[in-house]
Amino acid sequence: MPKVLILGDESEQYSELLDAMQLPEWDCRCLKNPDSGAESFSDVEVLFGPPELLLEVLPRYTSLKWVQSSWAGVTPLVQAPRKNFILTGVKGIFGELMREYVLGWLLALERNIPLRAQANSWQPALDSSLLGKSLGIMGTGSIGCAVAQAANSFGLKVRGLNSDSRPVEGFDACFDTRSAERFAEGLDYLVALLPATGATNGIVNTGVFESLNPGAIFINAGRANCVVLDDLKTSLNHGKLRAAVLDVLEREPLPDDDPLWALDNLYITSHTAAPTRASAVVSVFAENYRRFVAGDPLLYQVDFERGY
Amino acid sequence: MPKVLILGDESEQYSELLDAMQLPEWDCRCLKNPDSGAESFSDVEVLFGPPELLLEVLPRYTSLKWVQSSWAGVTPLVQAPRKNFILTGVKGIFGELMREYVLGWLLALERNIPLRAQANSWQPALDSSLLGKSLGIMGTGSIGCAVAQAANSFGLKVRGLNSDSRPVEGFDACFDTRSAERFAEGLDYLVALLPATGATNGIVNTGVFESLNPGAIFINAGRANCVVLDDLKTSLNHGKLRAAVLDVLEREPLPDDDPLWALDNLYITSHTAAPTRASAVVSVFAENYRRFVAGDPLLYQVDFERGY
Repeated sequence: MPKVLILGDESEQYSELLDAMQLPEWDCRCLKNPDSGAESFSDVEVLFGPPELLLEVLPRYTSLKWVQSSWAGVTPLVQAPRKNFILTGVKGIFGELMREYVLGWLLALERNIPLRAQANSWQPALDSSLLGKSLGIMGTGSIGCAVAQAANSFGLKVRGLNSDSRPVEGFDACFDTRSAERFAEGLDYLVALLPATGATNGIVNTGVFESLNPGAIFINAGRANCVVLDDLKTSLNHGKLRAAVLDVLEREPLPDDDPLWALDNLYITSHTAAPTRASAVVSVFAENYRRFVAGDPLLYQVDFERGY
Repeated sequence: MPKVLILGDESEQYSELLDAMQLPEWDCRCLKNPDSGAESFSDVEVLFGPPELLLEVLPRYTSLKWVQSSWAGVTPLVQAPRKNFILTGVKGIFGELMREYVLGWLLALERNIPLRAQANSWQPALDSSLLGKSLGIMGTGSIGCAVAQAANSFGLKVRGLNSDSRPVEGFDACFDTRSAERFAEGLDYLVALLPATGATNGIVNTGVFESLNPGAIFINAGRANCVVLDDLKTSLNHGKLRAAVLDVLEREPLPDDDPLWALDNLYITSHTAAPTRASAVVSVFAENYRRFVAGDPLLYQVDFERGY
């Protein structure tokens, strides 16, 4: 009977959902705050929770076998010295929300929805459209694929960027991370959905912005590390980019007095693009838990070398 | 060599595009304003232009054989006494823009894009989503089908309404125009894309709004006749509807002092949902012109009885 410890503010909600699932040999405890009551759980084999909290308690549990992150991003855990456990992430549950976010913003900006929502007189001037446009997606994993599929259904041409330019269904062509400028050439829309790794640091920079079509739109809904913020500001100010939408920033929450808020053509969405739904993250954990008990390989294992 | 007369403000643009297409026996003249120069075109066989202008000149051309409307709506021509000609509409070219409009507004409203576009501080409260929601589309023709397909790609359950409840691909179920309340039961979103006919007059009324789920969203991007405007206002004011988006109104342009502009949860988009693109309407005319010259049946013929 593997002892399971669920960490964090959502731990009781997760535990309630899991208790109802009749998992084999189920024995779980919850800990909202790792600073309290940790002593009573000495022989934990399974940890489940947000990466930052998991990181704090990692040294305490010597019999640890498997750590399930409740987030997609696992950077703090990958960078920790201890690596003698299986680390699994959460995948396949963000695509549905991310495609809404990306297509929602592209459609809203092309069709002038923010302005039309405030109109108080007849405005017959026609809006622009997605028709005939091209979208580049940095990141061709499950999230990128979900976005590509939605984009295809609006007739967009879709290009992908990944680590080794491998072809992926739903993308007309794929480029590798070292060919970001060639990938960006002639794109009308650029969407970054990249994990935070060494290879993605600052990959979206002036060179990339200059390769895009004039008046392009940039969206970052992956991790903040990929954008050179000064380059983005320059491209927005000089009109090279029509607009940018940032869901993620190095500093979150972004302070009220940050000058980014004042940029007219920059939209900041406060890390809400694809929030983790409890039911979805719990179903990933439950599937992996069944595999763990049965001795089967776990889903969404993180490669400590690769970083995701 | 059939004499072709192209009417309206776009006539010269259309003629230029058509001249370049090397159509057989091509002989066309343009007339921006039907009040000028009409005498010089006495034996016109083919008319092409917007319905209101076509209506004006209809009695002048006794040798008329075929009238191609440059709009989707043909109501004025259907209601005219003269019916001894083939009337064709424009179809298949609006779906691509209409799916952008409908999904754009649904996504923008669910994901709070109008508010987030104006944000100047961190707003981490989560937005709602299309996930698990249901959409009813009134009108299952080429436009309704294009919207249904886009909606399916976001996982929406899609129900249709048409004249005889015939099943249509892309719709889970179809209801007839006399069963509008049953059709509306439990829908989260209602989109009207109906032609203006006797059967669609006032079909969207309190009974329909009351059948929707609480907090539903209504979009009308078809014709204005289908909505009972007082019922809509009541449903918006009482919170039965969360929001409504109207692209069409009985009176266009809607005057600045109309109280509709003041309704917070009503968005008016000034008849811009799916404007006719010249290249698209010209390609429909050209295809039909080739068929006309060859003696083949024309596409998108209007049934004068049915009215569309």
